[in-house]
Amino acid sequence: MKFSQLIFQLEANPSEANPSEANKTSLDSHPNLDPDLTGAAPVESAPSGTLSYIEGGKFAAQINKTNASALILPQHEPFQLQATERGIAWVSVAAPRLMFAQAIALFYTPFRPAPGIHPTAIIDPTAAIGAGVSIGAHVVIQAGVTLGNGVCIHPNVVIYPNVKIGDRTLLHANCVIHERTQIGADCVIHSGAAIGSEGFGFVPTSQGWVKMEQSGYTVLEDKVEVGCNSAIDRPAVGETRIARDTKLDNLVHIAHNCHVGESCALAAQVGLAGGVKTGKGVILGGQVGAANLSYIGDRAQAGAKAGIHGNVEAGAVMMGNPATPYKTFLKSSAIYNRLPEMHQTLKQMQQKLEELQQQIQAIEGQNQSDFLQSSTKDT
Amino acid sequence: MKFSQLIFQLEANPSEANPSEANKTSLDSHPNLDPDLTGAAPVESAPSGTLSYIEGGKFAAQINKTNASALILPQHEPFQLQATERGIAWVSVAAPRLMFAQAIALFYTPFRPAPGIHPTAIIDPTAAIGAGVSIGAHVVIQAGVTLGNGVCIHPNVVIYPNVKIGDRTLLHANCVIHERTQIGADCVIHSGAAIGSEGFGFVPTSQGWVKMEQSGYTVLEDKVEVGCNSAIDRPAVGETRIARDTKLDNLVHIAHNCHVGESCALAAQVGLAGGVKTGKGVILGGQVGAANLSYIGDRAQAGAKAGIHGNVEAGAVMMGNPATPYKTFLKSSAIYNRLPEMHQTLKQMQQKLEELQQQIQAIEGQNQSDFLQSSTKDT
Amino acid sequence: MKFSQLIFQLEANPSEANPSEANKTSLDSHPNLDPDLTGAAPVESAPSGTLSYIEGGKFAAQINKTNASALILPQHEPFQLQATERGIAWVSVAAPRLMFAQAIALFYTPFRPAPGIHPTAIIDPTAAIGAGVSIGAHVVIQAGVTLGNGVCIHPNVVIYPNVKIGDRTLLHANCVIHERTQIGADCVIHSGAAIGSEGFGFVPTSQGWVKMEQSGYTVLEDKVEVGCNSAIDRPAVGETRIARDTKLDNLVHIAHNCHVGESCALAAQVGLAGGVKTGKGVILGGQVGAANLSYIGDRAQAGAKAGIHGNVEAGAVMMGNPATPYKTFLKSSAIYNRLPEMHQTLKQMQQKLEELQQQIQAIEGQNQSDFLQSSTKDT
Repeated sequence: MKFSQLIFQLEANPSEANPSEANKTSLDSHPNLDPDLTGAAPVESAPSGTLSYIEGGKFAAQINKTNASALILPQHEPFQLQATERGIAWVSVAAPRLMFAQAIALFYTPFRPAPGIHPTAIIDPTAAIGAGVSIGAHVVIQAGVTLGNGVCIHPNVVIYPNVKIGDRTLLHANCVIHERTQIGADCVIHSGAAIGSEGFGFVPTSQGWVKMEQSGYTVLEDKVEVGCNSAIDRPAVGETRIARDTKLDNLVHIAHNCHVGESCALAAQVGLAGGVKTGKGVILGGQVGAANLSYIGDRAQAGAKAGIHGNVEAGAVMMGNPATPYKTFLKSSAIYNRLPEMHQTLKQMQQKLEELQQQIQAIEGQNQSDFLQSSTKDT
Repeated sequence: MKFSQLIFQLEANPSEANPSEANKTSLDSHPNLDPDLTGAAPVESAPSGTLSYIEGGKFAAQINKTNASALILPQHEPFQLQATERGIAWVSVAAPRLMFAQAIALFYTPFRPAPGIHPTAIIDPTAAIGAGVSIGAHVVIQAGVTLGNGVCIHPNVVIYPNVKIGDRTLLHANCVIHERTQIGADCVIHSGAAIGSEGFGFVPTSQGWVKMEQSGYTVLEDKVEVGCNSAIDRPAVGETRIARDTKLDNLVHIAHNCHVGESCALAAQVGLAGGVKTGKGVILGGQVGAANLSYIGDRAQAGAKAGIHGNVEAGAVMMGNPATPYKTFLKSSAIYNRLPEMHQTLKQMQQKLEELQQQIQAIEGQNQSDFLQSSTKDT
Repeated sequence: MKFSQLIFQLEANPSEANPSEANKTSLDSHPNLDPDLTGAAPVESAPSGTLSYIEGGKFAAQINKTNASALILPQHEPFQLQATERGIAWVSVAAPRLMFAQAIALFYTPFRPAPGIHPTAIIDPTAAIGAGVSIGAHVVIQAGVTLGNGVCIHPNVVIYPNVKIGDRTLLHANCVIHERTQIGADCVIHSGAAIGSEGFGFVPTSQGWVKMEQSGYTVLEDKVEVGCNSAIDRPAVGETRIARDTKLDNLVHIAHNCHVGESCALAAQVGLAGGVKTGKGVILGGQVGAANLSYIGDRAQAGAKAGIHGNVEAGAVMMGNPATPYKTFLKSSAIYNRLPEMHQTLKQMQQKLEELQQQIQAIEGQNQSDFLQSSTKDT
């Protein structure tokens, strides 16, 4: 595809983040610099004939090094000049990464199995199957399951009874959807994930643990993604809910009765204990944990490995364990490494204080004796 | 089911934790307050016509808000009065959560596939299959496997050779049981778990890693539960053992040669490195890790994210990384956030010490000079 | 097998780590102490008739307790004498653990399914299948897949289109290999692992997350092992790469665009965020996390639970979060537990400083008044 064709297609679908009127491109001044592009590539290893992008200042040095033939740039004139000098075609937009995502979609067609039901799939006769579904080999669909139109189920997926799956939702290989789970439209469940599995509910007694049956269910609203080998439990009573447009990475654990708000992103290996609730737009870094019944407010963020207890205010950015506002954490963790030095200083100061105290006592003693002397003398 | 019927059934099976003689119920004084109950629900979202429970003071405010028609209460008279005032039927017991677990089991029948062997299951002729088993679609059972009576295996499970599985044990979809594993009776292995997989055993040499074959095996005793996508490795030699009644949550990692004691509970994403041993009744919070060969004594607990090294005494409650007794951790972590302030104070004090020292030197100097003066005068 | 036969076979294949000329054995002085050995066992629970080993001083006390009939010892004469006294046959070598690994391989034949393709496997006609492969029940192999010679695929594995798998590579049950993944020769992918799955790529907009299609691919070079239920994502563009001889334990997460160097070992539950790069021989303890785009130099190590940000120098040993050199961490974490005491000391010192200051002021006041007095007197 010619660079000019790519720009034409991208600008045909302007998004709020890169309004076409604001875009500049090297085509304006150098219409003949119009390379053939065969694909998209990372800027640092892009071969000639590919498109790449520069997110911000951090990667700017790559403009002078990359072999990419075209670049999506931020709206920064020096970058445009640098690219032009090196004979790289460019477009300059408000949201380079978003436009790059749109560009990839022009070069790349994701693998989707053709519609149809593989003869080795085992489908209970009570299941209601929508139009245009694709059901792979060895899939098992149990009683009372409802699949929307265009649902795509990769091989070896198991769906327990009475599950509902919305239109166009995609289930990757070997994932398991447990009884009564409700999955919305346009969701993606990645390989090996377990959705709606039994919550970890045991009551201690002197004879050992008594199991609390998990009679609740799990809901994923529309546009939810769940990463590979993640697990989202259902509760003893009530529901576990992941609201629309929320994205979970690989190996995430969501316990019973959690309610994760809209448009959140939970990075890999995050764990939410029982009954955690979050607002909208919450972002949790990798390996973050949140304790039972904590509440994380709208748009709050937690850095990787943070341990959340209690309530996090809307918009807060937290780090550390127990999590604290990141400014405090950064200061405290910087000083943490100087604790041995601080401890040493403290001991030296104690020593010095002792010495000063003795000196003062000596002075006082001397003054007293001087006074006595002088008194004596005076008399 | 009428509330009175529910109470009748629950009291027909008294457990030590809620001896029926100690129970009080609103039926004693208000026999006509006998609602029809359709199910159990979480107290904060319970619709009318459901049963819920109050665990302790933390949830007490819910008695005045809930729409539940019946409540299981702790033995606390003010709660009883509040519930009665709001027209809520109640029973008051020593262990409300335990009784709630028993109540759920009266409303809810967990899904269990019917006995029988699905025609698509592949079962080696040398396998010994007990009576009344249920073996789902596409299950693979290899040579020398023994299944007890009433074993239930969901679809797409793979069992490697020479595995033994005890009576009534339940294997959820897509889990994998590796060669020579021994699983007791009444165990539950959740979806995607891998049991008896190869330990991570490699010996470093100058030509790279040399693999140590994992010739040992894994044992789960009776009543063990293993959460979704957890992994329990077998060792190079000897065994990995999870003792009876121990419960593991999702995404837990148990390395080769670990021995986890009876009636422990390991929350999600816990990781035990090679050769970790625990006593009985140990409780580990989410994302806890224990280093190679550590020992965790009977009834010890570790808070979420704790990092355990070496030995933990019986009954200890640990937090932090490296883990310390929780009282120390709580104090230290509170001060951690004030480290920048402490550091500032320390610097100010150093400054002040300098000043005091100079003042003292000045006084000493002055006194010396006064002394000289006065001596001179005296002479 | 007689102990003498075992020694004969082990010394027939000397490795650099245990050159046969340096080995001593009890057979030299006690040729009749030549027990029949039935297997290998952990030293602390070895029954009579088995071989075990002593790695170093830490386990030395076991020489006086073990029931093993033969031991592989380090080159340390007192250990040899102790073993001989107890009637234990021994061989003494430079690398006991390596020789023990070699010994296990003489006693133990790992389970490998026979070559052949199970009739229930679904193999796309465009797949190219090498000689001597073993393909288990219900395996699904999609279009354009290439399998080398001797590849072994356990049941219920799913391979997406256009995957290449090298000679003798072993795929355990229920793992999933995604489109375009390239796996080298002699790799082992353990049960439930997902390789080449979609990276976690979403661009925030005011309408919610926009998905960035993951058009890249994942490469595992030769001799890579990936633990149970681990996940290695592919990137939006470019590749994710695990270099030769690198071993990943269970439940490890490798994000898009990571490049892990040769002969590394990543323990269980490690998580690498997007674009992390490592040198060769890097060792990461359990639950370590590394933030986006961090770089970890050759032979660097990180202790369990470390949180790595930015660059780690070659050979560094890091601990803590944020990770610091382990010496600093050990000192700081020791003092961390004494923070309350330090805080107390600091407050006491502040108090004392105040007192000293007052005393000094008092002295100065007194001296001033003395001076005035004496001046007055003088006049």
